[in-house]
Amino acid sequence: MVNLGPRSYPILVGAGALRSVGARLAALGVGRRTAVVSDPSVMALHGPTVVESLRASGFSVTEIRVPEGETAKTLAVAERCWDECLAAGLDRTSTLLAFGGGAVGDLAGFVAATYMRGIPFVQLPTTLLAQVDASIGGKVAIDHPRAKNLVGAFHQPRLVLADPAVLTTLPDPEFRSGLAEVVKHGIVLDAAYFADVEAHAPEILARDLPTLERIIAGSCRLKGRIVEADEREGGLRAALNYGHTVGHALEAATSFSKWLHGEAVSLGIVAAARIAERLGVADAQTRERQVRLLRQLGLPVTFAAPPPDAIVQAIARDKKARDGKVPFVLAPRIGESRLVFDIPADVVGSVLAEMQKGAG
Amino acid sequence: MVNLGPRSYPILVGAGALRSVGARLAALGVGRRTAVVSDPSVMALHGPTVVESLRASGFSVTEIRVPEGETAKTLAVAERCWDECLAAGLDRTSTLLAFGGGAVGDLAGFVAATYMRGIPFVQLPTTLLAQVDASIGGKVAIDHPRAKNLVGAFHQPRLVLADPAVLTTLPDPEFRSGLAEVVKHGIVLDAAYFADVEAHAPEILARDLPTLERIIAGSCRLKGRIVEADEREGGLRAALNYGHTVGHALEAATSFSKWLHGEAVSLGIVAAARIAERLGVADAQTRERQVRLLRQLGLPVTFAAPPPDAIVQAIARDKKARDGKVPFVLAPRIGESRLVFDIPADVVGSVLAEMQKGAG
Repeated sequence: MVNLGPRSYPILVGAGALRSVGARLAALGVGRRTAVVSDPSVMALHGPTVVESLRASGFSVTEIRVPEGETAKTLAVAERCWDECLAAGLDRTSTLLAFGGGAVGDLAGFVAATYMRGIPFVQLPTTLLAQVDASIGGKVAIDHPRAKNLVGAFHQPRLVLADPAVLTTLPDPEFRSGLAEVVKHGIVLDAAYFADVEAHAPEILARDLPTLERIIAGSCRLKGRIVEADEREGGLRAALNYGHTVGHALEAATSFSKWLHGEAVSLGIVAAARIAERLGVADAQTRERQVRLLRQLGLPVTFAAPPPDAIVQAIARDKKARDGKVPFVLAPRIGESRLVFDIPADVVGSVLAEMQKGAG
Repeated sequence: MVNLGPRSYPILVGAGALRSVGARLAALGVGRRTAVVSDPSVMALHGPTVVESLRASGFSVTEIRVPEGETAKTLAVAERCWDECLAAGLDRTSTLLAFGGGAVGDLAGFVAATYMRGIPFVQLPTTLLAQVDASIGGKVAIDHPRAKNLVGAFHQPRLVLADPAVLTTLPDPEFRSGLAEVVKHGIVLDAAYFADVEAHAPEILARDLPTLERIIAGSCRLKGRIVEADEREGGLRAALNYGHTVGHALEAATSFSKWLHGEAVSLGIVAAARIAERLGVADAQTRERQVRLLRQLGLPVTFAAPPPDAIVQAIARDKKARDGKVPFVLAPRIGESRLVFDIPADVVGSVLAEMQKGAG
């Protein structure tokens, strides 16, 4: 449960949870009409489970197909979704269900946030990244050609249903990409959770279902706690940007074509750990534990290109800049975070250069 | 002041108020960058006052020109605004100022609601309609080719500055159009306010500044009180839709080309008053007082086309429909409102037919 007063919502994690979506939605007392936003692969694999569950509970279902991955997050696709919602007769009581990875959740959430000034919205995340992170917290957006997530809103879902059973069909790089956010939650929020991930890395990589359920539920609980304390990202929630300042810059500087999001975040975590060590905020051992776990989970900790200057420039264009300054999240030790302003660009550049020479 | 906890904001009504915008904005502690969204006519008449006031208080100002009236409320114009905000380096602390009529406020508010998931936003309404109604309450939107205000959000301004002095340059039909909302506020919210408008109709029509200040401030106070009680339009705020169900349908059925918004609302008020009388919700005298005041203010109370059937069909597509039913606001007496569901379509149709035969 994420407790946000009138915007509170439950997060349910469990193998087979998708089959209960109709009954769960009916319990919320929303209108009879629904639309499921998804991509062709997800619909082919798991669509019938969701659609049948909704119909069995008396809902009408319109399927809205969108492209796979980040390419769904354009204004043109959002416009088509609004058209299809209107054509399907969706009104303010109707529900939009985001069924897919983080990109589908971002897009469908933005459409739900803005259609008729906001309609009910349900997250059915089908990637590890979306289950542990993106589906919780109400941050929804589409991309601008020159800035990711530039156009968006805060629109909390009414329900999040995470079914770890669907992760068994996820390609390996995508699965590992999601683990970067799991590691991040441990680093900045909970040392015991971090230690649990460290101790059970082999079972996680083997996608052992009981282990996945526990790890996913743990990440959801941690993320939910932060969202409760800081719904609109005033400050505390910034901790969740750990690894994301450099991570986003790496993605932006390579036009989002070189790394999966979690891979870029993994590199961003290493950069943040090195910066913390360099500034005397954290010790070498704290950095080493982070790098070791990321490496063990098959995530990148060094990289070859682009050059540090290009990355530093991309950081300066970060959406979190405040009158020109970009705040950095650092971890003084595992389980803690600190927001640091005014980190000299040459420190960032030199840490990135070290990573390019192979230092994790 | 509209009291909405962390989203509270002041409404300032006064001749010359525009000259204080820089100082007022500085007092809010927002970032140094601003963009003023306006149309060429408003900028030509009053732009220098606003821009100089902002610059004198240390703000940088980017001017974003948009088309006049409802044609500004398209996705294409919103997209250009996002582009220009990004090009101007606006960040999450920057302020967007909507400087113009209701359409500019709706558009700029939507851009502010969605740029970087929401940035500070100020309303500088320059029409009577916007000063007494549209600028307060945070309802922002753009139009869909097939549905007005289909894509939008709730995004409260940080400040509303209404300067009645700018109304002296407003064309007469536009000024009278705004009076429909003034009358509406009196009918559904405050009998004494209605009586004040009745008693001072000549001074209002002569645009006597002290009278306008009092009337505008009164409408702002009434609207603000409703918004406080029902920020997201759960129920109470529905009272403000008085006259708008038929009004919107008239606009939609004529592609928004035949009447100004307030003119359509005036006809919608007459229709609602006649429906209330027909259903025994209100007496004939209550209807007569409404019609008399609207007529006195130069607003239409009868009409020739489109045919009642087309209007009834447009009502069925209303955005406020809930699983197919459209709620109607009726006034049992001046100063009171009641939400009524399931009004038979033939009652609506027959009232519209009477109005077409010349019955006000």
